[in-house]
Amino acid sequence: MTRCLVTGATGFLGPHVVRALLAAGVEVISLSRTRVAPLAPLHRHIAVDLHDAAAVDEAINGAGASHLVHLAWEATPGVFWHSTENFRWIAASAFLLDAFLRAGGRRAVLAGSCAEYKPSDAPLLEASPTEGATFYAASKLAFHGLAETIAREIEMVWARIFFPYGPDEDASKLTSYIMRELSSGRAPVFQAPGRAVDMIHVEDVARAFACLVAADITGTVNIASNIARLPGEIALEGARLLGNAALADTLARTLRATPRTATLQGDNSRLLGVWSGAPMRDLKGGLASYLG
Amino acid sequence: MTRCLVTGATGFLGPHVVRALLAAGVEVISLSRTRVAPLAPLHRHIAVDLHDAAAVDEAINGAGASHLVHLAWEATPGVFWHSTENFRWIAASAFLLDAFLRAGGRRAVLAGSCAEYKPSDAPLLEASPTEGATFYAASKLAFHGLAETIAREIEMVWARIFFPYGPDEDASKLTSYIMRELSSGRAPVFQAPGRAVDMIHVEDVARAFACLVAADITGTVNIASNIARLPGEIALEGARLLGNAALADTLARTLRATPRTATLQGDNSRLLGVWSGAPMRDLKGGLASYLG
Repeated sequence: MTRCLVTGATGFLGPHVVRALLAAGVEVISLSRTRVAPLAPLHRHIAVDLHDAAAVDEAINGAGASHLVHLAWEATPGVFWHSTENFRWIAASAFLLDAFLRAGGRRAVLAGSCAEYKPSDAPLLEASPTEGATFYAASKLAFHGLAETIAREIEMVWARIFFPYGPDEDASKLTSYIMRELSSGRAPVFQAPGRAVDMIHVEDVARAFACLVAADITGTVNIASNIARLPGEIALEGARLLGNAALADTLARTLRATPRTATLQGDNSRLLGVWSGAPMRDLKGGLASYLG
Repeated sequence: MTRCLVTGATGFLGPHVVRALLAAGVEVISLSRTRVAPLAPLHRHIAVDLHDAAAVDEAINGAGASHLVHLAWEATPGVFWHSTENFRWIAASAFLLDAFLRAGGRRAVLAGSCAEYKPSDAPLLEASPTEGATFYAASKLAFHGLAETIAREIEMVWARIFFPYGPDEDASKLTSYIMRELSSGRAPVFQAPGRAVDMIHVEDVARAFACLVAADITGTVNIASNIARLPGEIALEGARLLGNAALADTLARTLRATPRTATLQGDNSRLLGVWSGAPMRDLKGGLASYLG
């Protein structure tokens, strides 16, 4: 039986990852400061502050977990890029990982980010050059290096997540904004209309984590769709989905006049090598989840 | 006027570095949890726990320092290599550096370690490959990467210190042990007689830091003597210094029968490029400091 610790259970990704693991028959012990009601008989929650080393040790020693999915990190929208809180998460994450393996843990899947890559318009491979352009990226890179030392004797996956989206994301996020504007019959306005990024639906991110928990590959793995979308493409697809033909026409014209100035796309061959079940959602299917 | 913050002022290196800076006419503000009596009119001390971010911010905001020498780190002999305290020092160090530059700091000299290098018998250059073999090394490497992001807009030196020695070192250290045994007329016994390491006297380490504070070079700089010594060589030199010819003969015979199995030597060309004043102590001069 796989018993998996999941941190960040109250964040955006966490609840989806917990559900995907439970659906895969994995026993889940979620960890976060806030209490979380169990979602299934195989789920239990431990309320613990991950910055409190003694409490983390106690929680993990009693958990008997074979696997770890570590998602928790500073994530305040708009603030996390340059927050010094990132530094505390390096220490907390390193301590957590060490406690996990001291307690007998065997496989850890740790959340990295596409922000670690040095910008490049070519699809980003796991071996592509990295760069700590922000405190967030530099701190994720610092923890990655540290994790390679700490987890030397167990299996470790460093999962670089690209741009997750989904209806329960923060309201300030791009796709939420687009769908809100479209639903009110307005054309959304973009800060960076020429920047295409690799969007992956949150439930596919969650399935990726469940697949990586079950797999035996190690090292860095991109959690990406391998398709970069301009904001205008998302808006056009959304307008079509909502059946607003006039707005779709306007958006299509704007899109044709928008040069692509930057692309951030993740090669997902490694991920697809362990993927199982239905294929990832396409953009239409992803946007449909906002209409629930 | 150069006003320099010095952390780790109560450690082994700290007091020497404070004195070397004062001797160079630098105004020093030392920081450590324990109170330290000022050594000169240009010296003042602020008692602060470097793990307390709010207290660090307050201390640094009021200090008006142009320079920073950051020495503080987990250093409990025998324990520091694998202690999880190293993780907390990454976060504390990153916060300190960020606070320093937010308060207007212009140049930071940060203590790294030769332990960051991947072992190699060739003299280690600053660009030689690194490896996080221990929690200590991995954490220093993690902080180094992070510091390059944090200090992007100021001058930063990463000073990789080789094997400092001096009479006020911890009693468990090799040279102290050797000099103690020799003084009692006994031949010291070594755990790794074939391992030669690059020894540099603590007062030369301190002068190196003072030179690096005054210089304008940036990037990694080895604090090394460029001479690797076997334990038996130190013992032989010590016996000669103490005038014990019989013991020196015995030690010389043992030394001739000891193959050199590993060498850890630091190329110090970058350091010598900014070195000023008298040359570094040779081994004889360094050991003489133990005879006080």
